Amino acid sequence: MFRMRFGRIATPEGMCFCVIEGEEPNLIAKEIEGTPFTDPVFSGREWPLADVRLLAPMLPGKIVAIGRNYADHVAEVFKKSAEHLPPTLFLKPPTAVIGPGAAIRIPEFATKVEFEGELAMIVGRACKNVKAADWKSVIRGFTIVNDVSSRDLQFKDGQWARAKGIDTFCPLGPWIETDIDSIDTTNLPIKAHLTHKGVTTIKQDSNSNQMIMNLGEIIEFITASMTLLPGDVICTGSPAGTEAMEPGDFIEIEIPGLGKLGSPVERA
Amino acid sequence: MFRMRFGRIATPEGMCFCVIEGEEPNLIAKEIEGTPFTDPVFSGREWPLADVRLLAPMLPGKIVAIGRNYADHVAEVFKKSAEHLPPTLFLKPPTAVIGPGAAIRIPEFATKVEFEGELAMIVGRACKNVKAADWKSVIRGFTIVNDVSSRDLQFKDGQWARAKGIDTFCPLGPWIETDIDSIDTTNLPIKAHLTHKGVTTIKQDSNSNQMIMNLGEIIEFITASMTLLPGDVICTGSPAGTEAMEPGDFIEIEIPGLGKLGSPVERA
Repeated sequence: MFRMRFGRIATPEGMCFCVIEGEEPNLIAKEIEGTPFTDPVFSGREWPLADVRLLAPMLPGKIVAIGRNYADHVAEVFKKSAEHLPPTLFLKPPTAVIGPGAAIRIPEFATKVEFEGELAMIVGRACKNVKAADWKSVIRGFTIVNDVSSRDLQFKDGQWARAKGIDTFCPLGPWIETDIDSIDTTNLPIKAHLTHKGVTTIKQDSNSNQMIMNLGEIIEFITASMTLLPGDVICTGSPAGTEAMEPGDFIEIEIPGLGKLGSPVERA
Repeated sequence: MFRMRFGRIATPEGMCFCVIEGEEPNLIAKEIEGTPFTDPVFSGREWPLADVRLLAPMLPGKIVAIGRNYADHVAEVFKKSAEHLPPTLFLKPPTAVIGPGAAIRIPEFATKVEFEGELAMIVGRACKNVKAADWKSVIRGFTIVNDVSSRDLQFKDGQWARAKGIDTFCPLGPWIETDIDSIDTTNLPIKAHLTHKGVTTIKQDSNSNQMIMNLGEIIEFITASMTLLPGDVICTGSPAGTEAMEPGDFIEIEIPGLGKLGSPVERA
């Protein structure tokens, strides 16, 4: 099956959107005219992906996220059952977005900064009051997001905007998979691999089948209140297994069919 | 003193930024080439303001707000002293913004929707890690924001993103006053006039001298975490006196020197 993967890259000649073709490790980035929101028109320029730098595939107008959408994660973070703490909406600022391979930079005042591997939806068209059954009609594709969260600030502040909104706390990518029917979002493994002092361990190893609100319900819930616009990013929640990272670590979120999103961790 | 006021208007020929000159009720909108971020270059076209429609003066990339920044408001909403509930950051989505005179539209599921009149800062340049003393160097000007809040959803959700992020819940305007030294932000009256069943009452009647964090401290606090970009809006917190609105009401926030921001209230 042809899989359409849209990315954004930095080349020696500038930034552009591209279609990424081929299989690992021989991926090719083919420049497109326009954006990922229409069928691609190729400019004719192309590069081996290894020769250019992948950027976050989208600069979103807003990032709407669902918190507490996996019961196991609610239990580990909030020490309560999801029954008493239902899913809730929050926002991450666009300035937190970084691309694949860019560093998560931890400021001194954030003392417990955890990864949260999540499936992300990229909105494809302006919409409001979308019914759950129609969710696919407003989504352009999927990618991976790491909803980096300073757990100490999250509880100190009460509101999560700062804890989850620090610059670099929203790794996004590696690209947008627009063949949405190729991804079984009801049974999608989500993994986080943490490399600490040279040893790599699987920390999150869950599945989208553990979501409390499914993708359609999330879209209906958000769009009952907010208009979604093309390029908006929706983070669908993190499963259990989140853990603090330290400068020098490397965190990689993996979702089969969507690729891997890796980030070194540094001190800001 | 010459007061430079930048607005955004809808004219029969399209939308544009403008400089607003003159005194009420004889204001003139003079079209500018470019944006409010540079000295104005006039196109030569102008209209009486009464003949065009004022829009929100900025379409922000993000809206960063300070909650619990007035002790009297903390006491009335949270039933606790500000000492135990310090100011906290939250985000409103850009899709919530409406201009002067546009309607706040209340959906059925929001049963206690309150106005919150606030001083807003418009960011003038990209900045990070700004010291409090330098805040004026990164601000382009001031305007008024109504941080409309569904109090029931705010407490039900815990996170405020939905309660404060519903479409139309961020009236902004009427224009940006860039002569920032003309506004004494340490002693600035903030008033909210609610018209209910034809009777207008002053509901908020406070002063920026009641702020817990001042403008410099707010800028330093935010930019320790987040890069601010030109056009970003910072809401500086609401004083006491907030109250629920009903369809048919008219709410007007007034800050001397910045004008009035009025919104009819409708059922969505």
